[in-house]
Amino acid sequence: MNEVNILRITYYALRIISMNSDKLIEGLQDKANKLRIHSIRTTTKAGSGHPSTCLSAADIVSALFFHTMRYDPHDPSNPNNDRFVLSKGHAAPLLYAAYAEAGAIPIEKLDTLREIDSELEGHPTPRFKWADVATGSLGQGLSIGVGMALNGKYLDKLDYRVYVLMGDGESAEGSVWEAAALAAYYKLDNLVGIVDVNGMGQSQHTMYKFDIESYQKRFEAFGWHTIGIDGHNMNNILAALDEAKSTADKPTMIVARTLKGKGVSLIEDKDGWHGKPLSENEMKLALKELDRPASDYKFKIESPQKEFEMRNSEFGIKRKISLIPNYKIGEEVATRNGFGTGLAKLGDVSALVVSLDGDTKNSTYAQDFMKAHPDRYFECFIAEQNMVGAAVGLSSRGKIPFVSTFAAFLTRAFDHIRMSAISDANIKYVGSHCGTSIGQDGPSQMGLEDIAMMRAIPNSVVVYPSDAVSAEKLVAEVAQHKGIAYIRTSRPKTPILYPNDEEFKIGGCKVLRSSDNDKVTVVSAGITIHEALKAYEILKKEGIHIRVIDAYSVKPIDEVSLKKSASETNNTIICVEDHYYDGGLGDAVLNAVAKHGVFVHKMAVKELPRSGKPEELMELYGISAGCIVKQVLEVKG
Amino acid sequence: MNEVNILRITYYALRIISMNSDKLIEGLQDKANKLRIHSIRTTTKAGSGHPSTCLSAADIVSALFFHTMRYDPHDPSNPNNDRFVLSKGHAAPLLYAAYAEAGAIPIEKLDTLREIDSELEGHPTPRFKWADVATGSLGQGLSIGVGMALNGKYLDKLDYRVYVLMGDGESAEGSVWEAAALAAYYKLDNLVGIVDVNGMGQSQHTMYKFDIESYQKRFEAFGWHTIGIDGHNMNNILAALDEAKSTADKPTMIVARTLKGKGVSLIEDKDGWHGKPLSENEMKLALKELDRPASDYKFKIESPQKEFEMRNSEFGIKRKISLIPNYKIGEEVATRNGFGTGLAKLGDVSALVVSLDGDTKNSTYAQDFMKAHPDRYFECFIAEQNMVGAAVGLSSRGKIPFVSTFAAFLTRAFDHIRMSAISDANIKYVGSHCGTSIGQDGPSQMGLEDIAMMRAIPNSVVVYPSDAVSAEKLVAEVAQHKGIAYIRTSRPKTPILYPNDEEFKIGGCKVLRSSDNDKVTVVSAGITIHEALKAYEILKKEGIHIRVIDAYSVKPIDEVSLKKSASETNNTIICVEDHYYDGGLGDAVLNAVAKHGVFVHKMAVKELPRSGKPEELMELYGISAGCIVKQVLEVKG
Repeated sequence: MNEVNILRITYYALRIISMNSDKLIEGLQDKANKLRIHSIRTTTKAGSGHPSTCLSAADIVSALFFHTMRYDPHDPSNPNNDRFVLSKGHAAPLLYAAYAEAGAIPIEKLDTLREIDSELEGHPTPRFKWADVATGSLGQGLSIGVGMALNGKYLDKLDYRVYVLMGDGESAEGSVWEAAALAAYYKLDNLVGIVDVNGMGQSQHTMYKFDIESYQKRFEAFGWHTIGIDGHNMNNILAALDEAKSTADKPTMIVARTLKGKGVSLIEDKDGWHGKPLSENEMKLALKELDRPASDYKFKIESPQKEFEMRNSEFGIKRKISLIPNYKIGEEVATRNGFGTGLAKLGDVSALVVSLDGDTKNSTYAQDFMKAHPDRYFECFIAEQNMVGAAVGLSSRGKIPFVSTFAAFLTRAFDHIRMSAISDANIKYVGSHCGTSIGQDGPSQMGLEDIAMMRAIPNSVVVYPSDAVSAEKLVAEVAQHKGIAYIRTSRPKTPILYPNDEEFKIGGCKVLRSSDNDKVTVVSAGITIHEALKAYEILKKEGIHIRVIDAYSVKPIDEVSLKKSASETNNTIICVEDHYYDGGLGDAVLNAVAKHGVFVHKMAVKELPRSGKPEELMELYGISAGCIVKQVLEVKG
Repeated sequence: MNEVNILRITYYALRIISMNSDKLIEGLQDKANKLRIHSIRTTTKAGSGHPSTCLSAADIVSALFFHTMRYDPHDPSNPNNDRFVLSKGHAAPLLYAAYAEAGAIPIEKLDTLREIDSELEGHPTPRFKWADVATGSLGQGLSIGVGMALNGKYLDKLDYRVYVLMGDGESAEGSVWEAAALAAYYKLDNLVGIVDVNGMGQSQHTMYKFDIESYQKRFEAFGWHTIGIDGHNMNNILAALDEAKSTADKPTMIVARTLKGKGVSLIEDKDGWHGKPLSENEMKLALKELDRPASDYKFKIESPQKEFEMRNSEFGIKRKISLIPNYKIGEEVATRNGFGTGLAKLGDVSALVVSLDGDTKNSTYAQDFMKAHPDRYFECFIAEQNMVGAAVGLSSRGKIPFVSTFAAFLTRAFDHIRMSAISDANIKYVGSHCGTSIGQDGPSQMGLEDIAMMRAIPNSVVVYPSDAVSAEKLVAEVAQHKGIAYIRTSRPKTPILYPNDEEFKIGGCKVLRSSDNDKVTVVSAGITIHEALKAYEILKKEGIHIRVIDAYSVKPIDEVSLKKSASETNNTIICVEDHYYDGGLGDAVLNAVAKHGVFVHKMAVKELPRSGKPEELMELYGISAGCIVKQVLEVKG
């Protein structure tokens, strides 16, 4: 065959290829255009929403949903679907439009955007079954992606990839950089972030405007591979997504230069259009501007790989688990040790249990789990927000994350904890070193508002064990309770109160001391139970009997038992706790029994504490055995 | 003069200079040695503490306190002292030792470390008058430094410099990067950070171990000038601190390679010595190792510049301030607008008031202040933790920062808010868009746990205005209350309830509807007051009278008035609020009146809400006028 023929053949071959790719590009541009139209139309119909931010990301989302991502549009539960996290949650209309165009939901459904009976909410929540998690509090999506990627690479060993679409404004959130650091540390090459740099925040330009390089420099410094592109150039976008797929050992961040409101001249790159839909008339003009001949390109969304080895994939825990502790009554063990021992044992019976800790594992005793199950322990270093976000990602993939640090430092992640509840996550938070009883380290290290924080979350479970037996048992109980739970542990060693076969159900309590002529019921939990028991002995010598109840389940609290006990003790309860006065156990008790005409005397920490010996501090802040004795003598009059 | 003479003179000149500098270096090394000795000795005596982290930073602190920093060791209140923030608060013994060696406190005082009656606490708090702020929750110091530097450069126009000593482990905290970004954005060349890279966290090595370059790359990418040094080489340290002084238009980060436990072979660069003092015997060996001939170098700490123009320097507000709103009864205005208008007016009468907002100023209406007083508004972008930390720094320099964002996003900074209270800061937090009444944006944007969070903090003030008049008035009230205060504002427009001359004192309430035969008292605040007033009208038509109380002061709450009102209405109170069930107004009321035998029926949001119209949601979650009517009919039987 002569050269001319070869050239001719080559020419046609190339022509076909380029025609195909031209067709693909046209098709994706057409999809992007449809996504823009849906976003404009549905927000105008809803009368609220954020159309302009949808338009800046439409081309990127089109490329992801109709070319790059591998997923089954008819099965959101396929464990090997590529994951998509819309960190810039206010672009929700774009997300819904993409799934509609992909055939996952009917197009008509889009008209229900933001209606009270629609799962298409203003910001995504798992009520929309394609949203694994809730987003909308900015700067949390990348952490969630880290958790999903950790699961794919290290636990389930699936080859799904995780794509996180972020806004440029939200990259000011520190949690983004916590996530960036950990993603690089764990070499998450199955994680791809895309920053939609439209240069505008809610109230003004972002800190770096359109300086793509400054974003690249920062992510590179944090160990990422980065690619800067024009976020409206489909060839650029596809090339970058391909490059990300072929990048090994590090995550990739695509930094895309875009325009807010792209494609609609009225709002394109204009101020004052962050959270504002177009009016009916403005919409008509916009739709006219977006009107163009449709492409006939036939899309075939690539399915996830069928054959994969699924590890740890069953959801929930099959049989009822009960741990058998191994202590002697009176033996001195800290509840934080009980937690660590219990968690390590739980790891033996459930492959779903994973542990995350923020460089406090030798204090919280998460290290016991790490030593027993190193492959299911993730060191998150001193970055509590990302730790919680990653746990949300792991939970969304069916794991049961135990997230531990000092109780005081869980406050660092309150926004993430709040969002984890909205994400319907199955996470167990563990706060150690609660209260003034930690002693000399002082107030910065004392968790004294943690119960208030965790109780505030609807449907949360809050337990506060008083000894290592109950601590171990409660680890298994909360693991088998689907949802947000909190275990509060203490630093000091305290005597074992319960036999190893004692059971502790969520919502229960234990009557530790009781007689027929008790003058008052003293309710407590954790460290102060031991003060209450000392007070019992002192008062007994004086011939005064008190009932002592261990309210280890702070939420839900055992209303029936408390009411009954109070009715047998002059309708009087003294509640003592190593927590601030507002929002703790005292308020849980008050809410349970006040309506039954029971008088509750709250003993709690009323001021900002200082450094000192534990016993000195508990005396100073009015929660010691001596203070309980005084209070009892007062109320019994 | 011939060349030989010139050479001879030059030779002697150089010799003198180098002799001097040798002497200085020896002197500073000797001081560092003394600081190490104090740190070892005092922690062993206290029986707890973190000696090893003191030893890694001793040389740096010696250079700062005895050569670089300009301050008056006898006057911590000198407004032009260079500021030192010990972000790695667990190195407190080193801080106390430095001030003792500087003559600020007696050496003997060091022996009281961690004792209950000593201001030398386990982690620094302002009880120690040289500590402007409390530290110990890691990753917060740089933000505080940003606030102090903003004040020096833009407000007081003083030439003091701000030095922040950080640990390497804490640089994993996202708030560090929020601070880094804002410091560069505001060109804070009066801010110098030093990272003490000893490579060890609490439970294991840090993420980057001794990779000095990775720290430099990251801070450079965030816009800082960086210098990598050997943190135990005094010449290196002095040169770096000089270079920082001569760096214009950007902050400088010195990244110092150090060894934890430096100078004591038993613990130097050894695992397991993070929070552990040496035993008596170990101490003896350590002190022997540190024993060396003292230097006779005479230190003269350079005083701060005397002549400076002090602007906005008077602390507190001189005269009683009352703002005069300008609304008509019944006019529809959102309380968030009332806040913005009030804050702008407050800025006219007090030069101390500053405003910080996280790219929500067009929603919180902090933009009203920004427009009126652009020189006292600081845009903090979407980074709430740093915003609060910067406010702590500004407060420590005598300003009255108003920190505003969505109520939901204040949870992002709970740890910083908690620490701001321990820092004895004078900050006013403002959370807008509270509750389900924001409507379609959905749960991620709804502040529903904010009252619980702010009430938990001892001595905090929480106000929740129901109309724009009370909003404006309360802005002035909280500004004149020293300490932590929280203003909760709502998104929807609501009718003006009060005349412009009405006064609203902290701790008060307003009886809005009252008659001699009221069946029950309905207590509310904010948006739901308007539901209660609708309920009042509906019930009145039925001939049922209820009392309606606006409990705008949630904490402290007006116990006397509530008790009195309840006693006149069958000892029954219905409390309705747009907040989660636990920790809100309902619990404030319950705590105030339950002990007086008053029955409280709490109406609040009991589940995780969804998107919908405000009125639909308030109906769905049981806090609408209709629901109040139902509840009234129930309780009155």
